Amino acid sequence: MNATLFVCTTCRAGQPVVDGQPVAGARLFTALTQAPPPPGLAIAPVECLSACNNGCAVALSAPGCWSYVYGRLGLNDVPDILAGAAAYAATPDGLVPWRERPQIFRKQSLARLPPQER
Amino acid sequence: MNATLFVCTTCRAGQPVVDGQPVAGARLFTALTQAPPPPGLAIAPVECLSACNNGCAVALSAPGCWSYVYGRLGLNDVPDILAGAAAYAATPDGLVPWRERPQIFRKQSLARLPPQER
Repeated sequence: MNATLFVCTTCRAGQPVVDGQPVAGARLFTALTQAPPPPGLAIAPVECLSACNNGCAVALSAPGCWSYVYGRLGLNDVPDILAGAAAYAATPDGLVPWRERPQIFRKQSLARLPPQER
Repeated sequence: MNATLFVCTTCRAGQPVVDGQPVAGARLFTALTQAPPPPGLAIAPVECLSACNNGCAVALSAPGCWSYVYGRLGLNDVPDILAGAAAYAATPDGLVPWRERPQIFRKQSLARLPPQER
């Protein structure tokens, strides 16, 4: 399916802004896009996922599928985020079996949303 | 537009389950559906919005629009939830001007998601 991993690039993750340095969310986006994305997945920046108390945050979404938002993420989580996003992109409905989700997705879910009907 | 207010009906909101009594999320759903919904809004139950640490939770979603998830809600918030959902349903894109959002929507956002592209 055509899934998108949205990365909040304005997130400061509770850290002070340093002149000339990208904020934590921008650094996470850069790290996630260093390698080609998994099959069926696009990685897109977004200005604010409104999860500011739980940054850095990312969201997984795809047409007709459940969407998920995860928080309290950092650079060390990049491999797990990409693995979890790849598993998501390989499903028909967004529902990855619980045991196949990386631990950060099992423990750091902020919310999920039902598919949008049209 | 055709907006949906999803209400997590399995949420315990951190309270113990009492035999024979509906959980907090189910009580919130019942309270929200006591009156006819605002124009353009459907109110639907959903099993778990995966916002368990911040229940009760609701989500606002509509085709082609930004989606929002709000948490830490209770029965006292029913009028504000309905007012905020009505304002959301009246927009073309899900983006209600900040000052026109009820305080619970300004202060208790758990996450938002960009529109799903098809």
